[in-house]
Amino acid sequence: MTKILPGPASVELGNKLAEELGVETVPVEAKSFPDGESYVRISGDLENERVVVVQSTYPPQNTHLVQLLQLLDAARDMKASEVIAVVPYLAYSRQDKRFRPGEAVSVGTIVRLIEATGVNSLFTVDVHTEKILELFRIHAHNVSATPALGEFFAKRGLKEPYVFAPDEGALARAKSLAACLNADYSFFQKQRDRISGAIKTSVKEFEVKDRDAIIVDDIISTGSTIANAASMLHDQNARRIYVACTHPLLLSGAKDRMMSAGVHEIVGTDCVASEVSRVSVASVVAQSLRKTM
Amino acid sequence: MTKILPGPASVELGNKLAEELGVETVPVEAKSFPDGESYVRISGDLENERVVVVQSTYPPQNTHLVQLLQLLDAARDMKASEVIAVVPYLAYSRQDKRFRPGEAVSVGTIVRLIEATGVNSLFTVDVHTEKILELFRIHAHNVSATPALGEFFAKRGLKEPYVFAPDEGALARAKSLAACLNADYSFFQKQRDRISGAIKTSVKEFEVKDRDAIIVDDIISTGSTIANAASMLHDQNARRIYVACTHPLLLSGAKDRMMSAGVHEIVGTDCVASEVSRVSVASVVAQSLRKTM
Repeated sequence: MTKILPGPASVELGNKLAEELGVETVPVEAKSFPDGESYVRISGDLENERVVVVQSTYPPQNTHLVQLLQLLDAARDMKASEVIAVVPYLAYSRQDKRFRPGEAVSVGTIVRLIEATGVNSLFTVDVHTEKILELFRIHAHNVSATPALGEFFAKRGLKEPYVFAPDEGALARAKSLAACLNADYSFFQKQRDRISGAIKTSVKEFEVKDRDAIIVDDIISTGSTIANAASMLHDQNARRIYVACTHPLLLSGAKDRMMSAGVHEIVGTDCVASEVSRVSVASVVAQSLRKTM
Repeated sequence: MTKILPGPASVELGNKLAEELGVETVPVEAKSFPDGESYVRISGDLENERVVVVQSTYPPQNTHLVQLLQLLDAARDMKASEVIAVVPYLAYSRQDKRFRPGEAVSVGTIVRLIEATGVNSLFTVDVHTEKILELFRIHAHNVSATPALGEFFAKRGLKEPYVFAPDEGALARAKSLAACLNADYSFFQKQRDRISGAIKTSVKEFEVKDRDAIIVDDIISTGSTIANAASMLHDQNARRIYVACTHPLLLSGAKDRMMSAGVHEIVGTDCVASEVSRVSVASVVAQSLRKTM
């Protein structure tokens, strides 16, 4: 039988996933000791069960990561027949290259640590670059949140929607969200300023007047890039400007920065628990999990 | 050649250890990204070197632990011929048993994670229970901080010193500190109150009048047990009451609690960086390392 273990970073998502799959959850008790150590306790029997640990690793990344590793290791220790990790936001995935000599390629370390628990497979959502999955020796699957975001926006009755990628690298994501909405799509270009060296979004004209715009990205940290793009769309008289993202990390000030640039609404998913996490990835993750069951 | 990598939690200790051993250090650049991810960079060549990573895992344990794992993994990745971990305070060592069903035996997880980096051996100081070392498949050594603490107190010119363990489990540590000082030693007994169920230190008479007392323990968290013992010694007219400990975690209020109970001075080691870390374990760790070189 399959049982879902909702980790402390993803309690709601874990519960929704269990509903989608029509399987039981085993509650996880989690706390911090006064000295700061993380404690987890699995209150149920896992022997000979197929166990799905759902635990995202958004900030505080290190604590969420240690909890994930504790749960995976404990599930194996409690004699689960198979352990599957669902890690919607995979921390450290932007530290995937050695940019300067001597730098730790931290995502490689994280992959090795996850594998050291003896987990059998891993599912993540909109991983920063698909290349990261090749670092895993176990089966690692990337689930797209786009259908879930698309379904949400389809119900909004947008006016002649136009989907934008904040940079060329995000174009494929914009294209597939546009496909869900029968919308146009395009991208902004980033340029390095020849004098200051700063990277900024170049001015570009779009046929966006009186139309609803959606700027889509995988991770939103400071929101600066999105804010720049939103300003331009605002100047070009777009009707309403929406922001769609899978992982709304939303560092301090990010929301205000985007809203002040003319954004009407920010829509994130529950890969990261935040005040804008209106869309659940439970259904898309469930679909992927079912294929391997 | 041997090179020391002082991790961000143990920069001073790492530098002192290099001095003791007469070897080079390779500086580690460490920071947190705005989103909270830990970043480390090793600024030197490690190829074919014997590398000693010095990184304690006192609070914030999870971040210090992730940094330790990043450094061990990076050192291996940078082609060190041998990687040795010096982890003076080993976090999670009090989570060494399953007290209730379903609890994670977290120190077991930590051991597996450390080993997953491919490290060759590990040195720790005054580990909470020696049994933990049996969980390692690699060589794991426990170094005693007592000679370093003994040397410190020997220079203090104490008056007829009397060394106390706050409970019977710490008696061996008290005995060996007493041996360094030619002192008497004894222990306090903890008792469970038959009515309230609370554990408290029982009253016991010692010949401590006008003599200097040292209460010694491995880890001090809240300082409550020590404060109880200190109160009793104070009531029995001890001259000065010192506290000696290897790992001064000193959670909020701990120092005040002990000082108000009549403690004259708290002396900790640099296994944990704190305001009372007056004694360095560099010499005792160096001695242990030399034996394996």
